[in-house]
Amino acid sequence: MRRFPVPDYDDLPEDLRERIDEETDDAGFTPNVFSAFAYKPSHFRAFFAYYDALMLDTPLAREEVEMIIVAVSGANNCLYCVVGHGALCRVYSGAPKLADQLATNHRQADVSDQHMAMLDFAVKLTELPEAVTGEDVQRLRDAGFSREEVWDVASVTAFFNLSNRMATVADMRPNDEFYAMGRRD
Amino acid sequence: MRRFPVPDYDDLPEDLRERIDEETDDAGFTPNVFSAFAYKPSHFRAFFAYYDALMLDTPLAREEVEMIIVAVSGANNCLYCVVGHGALCRVYSGAPKLADQLATNHRQADVSDQHMAMLDFAVKLTELPEAVTGEDVQRLRDAGFSREEVWDVASVTAFFNLSNRMATVADMRPNDEFYAMGRRD
Amino acid sequence: MRRFPVPDYDDLPEDLRERIDEETDDAGFTPNVFSAFAYKPSHFRAFFAYYDALMLDTPLAREEVEMIIVAVSGANNCLYCVVGHGALCRVYSGAPKLADQLATNHRQADVSDQHMAMLDFAVKLTELPEAVTGEDVQRLRDAGFSREEVWDVASVTAFFNLSNRMATVADMRPNDEFYAMGRRD
Amino acid sequence: MRRFPVPDYDDLPEDLRERIDEETDDAGFTPNVFSAFAYKPSHFRAFFAYYDALMLDTPLAREEVEMIIVAVSGANNCLYCVVGHGALCRVYSGAPKLADQLATNHRQADVSDQHMAMLDFAVKLTELPEAVTGEDVQRLRDAGFSREEVWDVASVTAFFNLSNRMATVADMRPNDEFYAMGRRD
Amino acid sequence: MRRFPVPDYDDLPEDLRERIDEETDDAGFTPNVFSAFAYKPSHFRAFFAYYDALMLDTPLAREEVEMIIVAVSGANNCLYCVVGHGALCRVYSGAPKLADQLATNHRQADVSDQHMAMLDFAVKLTELPEAVTGEDVQRLRDAGFSREEVWDVASVTAFFNLSNRMATVADMRPNDEFYAMGRRD
Amino acid sequence: MRRFPVPDYDDLPEDLRERIDEETDDAGFTPNVFSAFAYKPSHFRAFFAYYDALMLDTPLAREEVEMIIVAVSGANNCLYCVVGHGALCRVYSGAPKLADQLATNHRQADVSDQHMAMLDFAVKLTELPEAVTGEDVQRLRDAGFSREEVWDVASVTAFFNLSNRMATVADMRPNDEFYAMGRRD
Repeated sequence: MRRFPVPDYDDLPEDLRERIDEETDDAGFTPNVFSAFAYKPSHFRAFFAYYDALMLDTPLAREEVEMIIVAVSGANNCLYCVVGHGALCRVYSGAPKLADQLATNHRQADVSDQHMAMLDFAVKLTELPEAVTGEDVQRLRDAGFSREEVWDVASVTAFFNLSNRMATVADMRPNDEFYAMGRRD
Repeated sequence: MRRFPVPDYDDLPEDLRERIDEETDDAGFTPNVFSAFAYKPSHFRAFFAYYDALMLDTPLAREEVEMIIVAVSGANNCLYCVVGHGALCRVYSGAPKLADQLATNHRQADVSDQHMAMLDFAVKLTELPEAVTGEDVQRLRDAGFSREEVWDVASVTAFFNLSNRMATVADMRPNDEFYAMGRRD
Repeated sequence: MRRFPVPDYDDLPEDLRERIDEETDDAGFTPNVFSAFAYKPSHFRAFFAYYDALMLDTPLAREEVEMIIVAVSGANNCLYCVVGHGALCRVYSGAPKLADQLATNHRQADVSDQHMAMLDFAVKLTELPEAVTGEDVQRLRDAGFSREEVWDVASVTAFFNLSNRMATVADMRPNDEFYAMGRRD
Repeated sequence: MRRFPVPDYDDLPEDLRERIDEETDDAGFTPNVFSAFAYKPSHFRAFFAYYDALMLDTPLAREEVEMIIVAVSGANNCLYCVVGHGALCRVYSGAPKLADQLATNHRQADVSDQHMAMLDFAVKLTELPEAVTGEDVQRLRDAGFSREEVWDVASVTAFFNLSNRMATVADMRPNDEFYAMGRRD
Repeated sequence: MRRFPVPDYDDLPEDLRERIDEETDDAGFTPNVFSAFAYKPSHFRAFFAYYDALMLDTPLAREEVEMIIVAVSGANNCLYCVVGHGALCRVYSGAPKLADQLATNHRQADVSDQHMAMLDFAVKLTELPEAVTGEDVQRLRDAGFSREEVWDVASVTAFFNLSNRMATVADMRPNDEFYAMGRRD
Repeated sequence: MRRFPVPDYDDLPEDLRERIDEETDDAGFTPNVFSAFAYKPSHFRAFFAYYDALMLDTPLAREEVEMIIVAVSGANNCLYCVVGHGALCRVYSGAPKLADQLATNHRQADVSDQHMAMLDFAVKLTELPEAVTGEDVQRLRDAGFSREEVWDVASVTAFFNLSNRMATVADMRPNDEFYAMGRRD
């Protein structure tokens, strides 16, 4: 948060304050991505509306969504998202070692073959999008994902390719709370 | 549009039909990205709301926004966005050769030094996001961009890193109209 | 043509003037690559002699040759060759969208499986020549190409790896005519 | 020479036999690149005509030309050209260790600052042609190269980007003689 | 430890058992790298002798050594070393967030300019060793490192380029203890 | 040896002098890597102890070990190791052309299928260590290597990823003797 000013909470539009309040009640603190995006309210609204659609309207388990986010953010070397969603990945999966594995090298993570196929797809789409073809989509289908699930795996991957870039440019810093959250079974 | 079914227009929610009608009236045809995202209405809404925020709430000229989009989409080798936004780039810039230059190699485009700095930033953030530091941000400021303009250059770049990946996974095909649009001065 | 001077037509050796005249009659304008290579007549002769051998003495269809050139030049991000041979690709194939597809991402082009194999080979030989082995050659043979056709696919690819580099160093600019040529069916 | 048949010497066109005889008299053996290109006489003529123009019509010293070839061929990992032109590099430079240095890592070669600038340019043009801009050309001029010398450095680099690819596809094997030639001061 | 068998402690040579005992007493558990290298005692001895020399005979602070290890292991995406030395990095630096920052993207870590220069050098030597020249060495000297410190920065980097590769091939798994160690101030 | 001073032989510890004497007697000259590492005796001891373990305690033939070293050092573009171990590769294999083939492009080397599998593994582990998985290990086993041989192939590869980096940073120069050694059958 060192490159773009964070506006005072009291100066924010009503709807942003409501969304921030809600998140703060939920988490016990205000994740810094909310403060960072408050720099530009129209983008705040768009960013979190897309985020909410990804989290709430999907047949994927929340644990799967967080696994994708951490692997993608690790591939893009994005500090905020690796640490912030690493915490959520631990919380939702109940697997305290999973996020560090995914952020470092998804190939070494303790996951099922189905999840490995999902992560291989997400990391390929992140690192070499032009090389993704119908064969990659078919491979996900063969691993047991429905058509909508494939769309959603792609959408989460694509959205965090947006998010990782904004976090890096804006130099967003993970809240201290995220680093240790969920590390005990 | 060969990997995810496109729903019938008549089966779409009212607000999607309205947005599609508006776009169709405007362009004289329905750009295929609207049909493609109609596959999942919650994502349709989120995607175009973000897109609208980028286009409408920015001190950047629309021509500059389209230049960024074409250079980023060229770097990601995304057919739909190169051709679709190549058309818009020609229309908004009034420069019929600019889009082909930007899509192929922004370094060879006929643009001002200020715009070259903007494009260098956008392409670096696309290709190697982890290497973008405060020095890159400062370089944009030194080239004459305000802090909000830097945020918006980054945001357009980030959003099309999302968009390019969705278009490639869904195999979106540019409408025939886009290929030739704006090619005369 | 901004880095090396273009000699006056009248000062050129007879054989260069003849070749330029022929080309100008044919195209209705002088493609800039002829002016650029006129900087050094011995190289002009060698370059176009090789070019002619590739175009005239081959079992490949001219349309196939142009498809390879556009895909290779897109992989090397060479403005002159993408735009100039994009025009020829449209003219010879009669497919007005093909060149933009090939220049952006050959994997998304509307081509037969046989042509996709040809383009995969050409792009691999361009991007990672040391990794091309007998297996790649065999794959082309299996796709139905004769031994001489394989040699010619490789030769066109190799020659445009030369051509792309000269065009970029000399900053050759495509003639305005090329941008729009062949865009109507 | 294992992927394309080498025609019998007696079956070759007269002009090819003459050129091969000349080369064989000169070297004491027939370099395999001549046998390999004899597979397709029209390409044989074009390839060696271009090669001759590069070697004979240039203000660059032959030693400089060979230095570029070895560095470029090392960057492309091309066995035939590294070994064949490594031999010529040793012979023309009188420096028996130079070719191994250039083929492995030109940055560690014992060359003047001017030659290092030349080699940096050649290797960049080989590895990332789209990133070569007017600044790179200017850097060569500042290092003391004339405009024609810059053209020729680029041309030798470009031609061996062709040559390396043909040698790899055709699996050309360096003659045994090349490996040890010129290794004594 | 799933690809090479771990010998029974009781079957190990006396000197290996002593070293393991010492380490186990120190850490309260046996780090898995000791069990993994016990597969081949001659390599166990060599590996830990080199490791000890790096840790014990150096003017670098232990905290600096661990910072290098984590950044290098992050660049190589090595799970064992990121997690195991991440723990040591937290312990020796007393900075509970530092290891996650370094493993994800050293450019975003909260370190001094001097340490950033050190980490830039280590990551470049890891990712593109052939491009490291005397200028990079000089930059470290200019940042205040003595000649011996430069040697040691390079040596730690080089050694973990060995270590990361052995850990990945042998699929070494970090002990559970490492994941959470040192996360409180 | 231009970046770190080489101590006088007479000032070296007894054990270093002994090791150097032994090597000098053996080779007829003192390989420069011994002089270079004498800069820091604790590292000299560790480096050569590991080296000795790799050479002496292995079911791999010495010729195979040298083949791996040359291919790895070629992939890392390390002058000292390519030239120094190129010499040893020629001597131990009795194949005077093998080292140049391996250093340039192992895919073009005249080796058995089993050795090609070994070299593919070594080069992949060098260039993209995070992508090496159990499948790569299995491929080596399928090619006929025992489990211990796989460990040793990996260990030689890993050690020369250390060695190549030290040689490059310290700018170690191959002794003149190495360049020509073993070039006659």
